[in-house]
Amino acid sequence: MTAKIARFLEEVRPVTPCVVVDLDVVRDNYLGLRRWLPLADVYYAVKANPAPEIVRMLTALGSNFDVASRGEIDLCLSSGVSAENISFGNTIKKQRDIAYAYEKGVRLYAFDCEAELEKLAEAAPGSRVFCRILMTCDGAEWPLSRKFGCEIDMARDLLVRARDLGLDPYGVSFHVGSQQTDLSQWDIAVGKAAMLFTALDAVGVELRMVNLGGGFPARYRSDIPAVERYADAVMSAMTNHFGNNIPAMIIEPGRSLVGDAGILETEVVLISRKGYDEDVRWVYLDVGKFGGLAETMDEAIKYRILTTRDGDDTAPVVLAGPTCDSADILYEKSNYEMPVSLKVGDKVRILSTGAYTTSYSAVNFNGFDPLKAYFI
Amino acid sequence: MTAKIARFLEEVRPVTPCVVVDLDVVRDNYLGLRRWLPLADVYYAVKANPAPEIVRMLTALGSNFDVASRGEIDLCLSSGVSAENISFGNTIKKQRDIAYAYEKGVRLYAFDCEAELEKLAEAAPGSRVFCRILMTCDGAEWPLSRKFGCEIDMARDLLVRARDLGLDPYGVSFHVGSQQTDLSQWDIAVGKAAMLFTALDAVGVELRMVNLGGGFPARYRSDIPAVERYADAVMSAMTNHFGNNIPAMIIEPGRSLVGDAGILETEVVLISRKGYDEDVRWVYLDVGKFGGLAETMDEAIKYRILTTRDGDDTAPVVLAGPTCDSADILYEKSNYEMPVSLKVGDKVRILSTGAYTTSYSAVNFNGFDPLKAYFI
Repeated sequence: MTAKIARFLEEVRPVTPCVVVDLDVVRDNYLGLRRWLPLADVYYAVKANPAPEIVRMLTALGSNFDVASRGEIDLCLSSGVSAENISFGNTIKKQRDIAYAYEKGVRLYAFDCEAELEKLAEAAPGSRVFCRILMTCDGAEWPLSRKFGCEIDMARDLLVRARDLGLDPYGVSFHVGSQQTDLSQWDIAVGKAAMLFTALDAVGVELRMVNLGGGFPARYRSDIPAVERYADAVMSAMTNHFGNNIPAMIIEPGRSLVGDAGILETEVVLISRKGYDEDVRWVYLDVGKFGGLAETMDEAIKYRILTTRDGDDTAPVVLAGPTCDSADILYEKSNYEMPVSLKVGDKVRILSTGAYTTSYSAVNFNGFDPLKAYFI
Repeated sequence: MTAKIARFLEEVRPVTPCVVVDLDVVRDNYLGLRRWLPLADVYYAVKANPAPEIVRMLTALGSNFDVASRGEIDLCLSSGVSAENISFGNTIKKQRDIAYAYEKGVRLYAFDCEAELEKLAEAAPGSRVFCRILMTCDGAEWPLSRKFGCEIDMARDLLVRARDLGLDPYGVSFHVGSQQTDLSQWDIAVGKAAMLFTALDAVGVELRMVNLGGGFPARYRSDIPAVERYADAVMSAMTNHFGNNIPAMIIEPGRSLVGDAGILETEVVLISRKGYDEDVRWVYLDVGKFGGLAETMDEAIKYRILTTRDGDDTAPVVLAGPTCDSADILYEKSNYEMPVSLKVGDKVRILSTGAYTTSYSAVNFNGFDPLKAYFI
């Protein structure tokens, strides 16, 4: 909670719910990452918070951009980003969207299967491509499932095929899972990448880049290792597996740049009990799972929450959103407590909500407007 | 799949993904419900599909409307609905939104706790109010949790208190769970309501209405009992528990009116395998969990899916959406199969997607536009 955000909320008193993002925090996070991982090129994962204000600031600071769609390419280009600083990092792309990106000058693409490679060869000839490999992602709060990436032996064959199709087999990417707190996962992943470098070298394909993905965390309810420790883990893994022949490195931070920069202000709409024998209060906020807090799905991300009555005695609560959807419950099993003195109409602040909130918000579910955001 | 929708898709060839809703089906569903449950006043649950086209048609047919928010009140009023035909059915309301509704002429409100009753007494004096009671909802595909409603002894006290606060204690509501297929649940619920009528009568409060909520299903992957069987279950329960002194009845269908009326057309973006030893194909569509198919959460709603190659041999698939979010998987555990001959670029049609799709869609997640809809 920065003084700048506190002052803004005090002076402007915006209608709730809304997110306020302190751009100074984003800048400091970016500069911190650059300082601790100077060898890595930063590609900001635009999906984390696609605000033009953030993209404009980061491009001025020298950042590159990882985009998921044609829409995000347009956003970057119209915010002053050069096409050569864009990576089309989604492994799932329509061929006409690849053609669009190529026509705009984008020359760096992700893939994880043969069909995607064929689209790239046709619509983005000669481009640098990197193959995403599967990771198991133990330890991540928002685990990545098996949706992206392929097994390592398939990756080897695909990178050879990329060359044969006239593409430039540039490197390997992986993702250790968003909000990853087990630092040893980087060593395992980089080890796999290094094995691929060796295997490809043996057949005359020289890979030159390792894309370490995202996974650096924002600070939610649990304390997390600082960015320095992450940087150390990454660099140890790189030197461990590549010696003094370290390839180009890309990181794709999203959450770790913008998460902590945002505060969501919300209002208590209702407090109730379900029966006379029930100890737990239900606290209903004017924001919920469909209004921007989608990452509370399965109570995965546990936000820190402040009230104006902190310090008073607390008791257990279930936290829920304002819609008529019974699935719109934020926390029922995560043992949240709130002050006994909490009242209907109180303002509540949800911390570290700068990432994956505004753009997740439903367009008009239950007749509620999408989540508003301010960038200061 | 109606001929009208097939013709529209053939002639217009709209950009995918999009939903096409056949208004004739909505009308027929409405008239069917009226025919089979003539004693019940229909309050269309606007949240199921808040399209003005649907609201205008239903109001012309004589429907009433169940709204969740101020936004939905405005939508109804601007679509020609009279305020006296609106029920503010969300139990979680800001007091200023109650005041707004009251000023517009809304006189029917839901509540399930004392704090909400006090807001209503202050902001909507003299209005008819109904208390929502908790149900366990065995058998529902999209179960309702304990978010709404209170225990029956608390409901009794609250309805007495409603009278003491100058409100009109009108009745009782419950919800057996969306997509409820266990017809005996209605008997249990109506039995509870009847007990409340008796208990209140003993202290001089005459309830006059039972609100049976929604829960009538649309047709997804499993076959479901026809609307007649639901109507029978409801009327048997009512006569069983109320004899020939049947109170006013309200039903709040949403899904059962509009679900089957919509078809979502989507395109296959990518088909891949994760490794050489894997039998399962991953099929990525241009719509996913954040583009309108939120009800696939935990694979709760299992849509029927048509391809242009149906009839060919099939094999197991995982179905996923187009975003970089690893949680954007539609079906991984529900044993979906698709034709072996399926190709990238093929059109795929997802049936019964007229309810809870367009308005659930994220505003701009991953740079993708919200789901488009056509009403024909």
